Amino acid sequence: MIPSATPSAAPSAQAVGDFIGLLGYSALGSFALLSQDAAYAPELRERLVLSRMAARELGEIDVIENLVAEHGSDLDAVMASFRDIMNDFLVRAQPRDWWERLIRSYVGHNLLQDLVEDLSRGLPASVADSVAPCLARSGHDDYVVGLLQPVLDAEPQLAARLALWGRRVVGEALTLVARLFADHPDLAELLPADGEARGRVASLTGRLQAGHARRLGRLGLTS
Amino acid sequence: MIPSATPSAAPSAQAVGDFIGLLGYSALGSFALLSQDAAYAPELRERLVLSRMAARELGEIDVIENLVAEHGSDLDAVMASFRDIMNDFLVRAQPRDWWERLIRSYVGHNLLQDLVEDLSRGLPASVADSVAPCLARSGHDDYVVGLLQPVLDAEPQLAARLALWGRRVVGEALTLVARLFADHPDLAELLPADGEARGRVASLTGRLQAGHARRLGRLGLTS
Repeated sequence: MIPSATPSAAPSAQAVGDFIGLLGYSALGSFALLSQDAAYAPELRERLVLSRMAARELGEIDVIENLVAEHGSDLDAVMASFRDIMNDFLVRAQPRDWWERLIRSYVGHNLLQDLVEDLSRGLPASVADSVAPCLARSGHDDYVVGLLQPVLDAEPQLAARLALWGRRVVGEALTLVARLFADHPDLAELLPADGEARGRVASLTGRLQAGHARRLGRLGLTS
Repeated sequence: MIPSATPSAAPSAQAVGDFIGLLGYSALGSFALLSQDAAYAPELRERLVLSRMAARELGEIDVIENLVAEHGSDLDAVMASFRDIMNDFLVRAQPRDWWERLIRSYVGHNLLQDLVEDLSRGLPASVADSVAPCLARSGHDDYVVGLLQPVLDAEPQLAARLALWGRRVVGEALTLVARLFADHPDLAELLPADGEARGRVASLTGRLQAGHARRLGRLGLTS
């Protein structure tokens, strides 16, 4: 189905359903990402913080499950079509050490949060209210900045390598965003209208890149 | 320190502190075990169930952190000495497929829950009340029985292999229980008194083995 090009048309039920599925898989995907990071954490304190962050991300799924049930559907079913995209991110951006692992989540998890937040602005008000608790930020960005900044200040060579790695990770993430809209074209109905669907997705990609650049800037890395 | 041999003496502060550290690490270790299993789950439904179980296990850690803070200590510090033992379990019992992975957690996670529950009976009443919410069972055993039973009924060769694997896993787990009491001898004060510390730990091991045999019996496997 070709997404509507009409600026302020209410999104279709398909677009809203796709969003809820994405949101559910985003919670499960964030859990997978952060719990895997926790398993590799060199210090017990970091392992504990990341494990708790992972568990909190998954906590969102109860809200989503209720919402899905209200619409007479099943959580597995609405999430299933996002599975490959998220798994591909883990496979295609394999970190070689703890620092690359932190950057992978810093880039990928936060870009995903930006994406979901951006899309949520196009939801009907009643759905937007229901999913609001799921859009709370995890604080993962501030945590990683706190961990990485002193290390990067002390090791310019590491900083250069991680800047390169950050570009690789964001490239993979944006490729998957493009695939997300190719697989679920109705999702584009949720984006602010500026012409046809392709233009909307291009504008979104620009916003995601800007958010990414800001985040890398916080670490003193060029994106 | 040699644990007291007096039957009903109140346990020392060291014994109680060790127990709380073990409980904290047990929550974090269960999270690590079950979230890793979730990452390998072949079906989205299983991945979701195991991820949620992992998150619930970690939820216990808030109670423990408060308890530790009341005693003027730090969660990392009390947990640190258990780290190697739990990590060793993951390293020494590496599953070769999904079924071995399920059995590893079925055996290891449930034995750990039995151990903690057994030790908790020796706590002073006030501490026992505080930690009671952390002793709730995860339901992991029933879930695994539901997944495995139809598969085992249909594949006797798999059942034979998993029975063997279950013996290997429980062997590793009991070796680590012995090391737990060697590293933290005061913990034995929490066990029902029947003579000296060595006898108490031997009785505990017998109870853990009986629980294990019962669980394997539910799957129709001999322990």
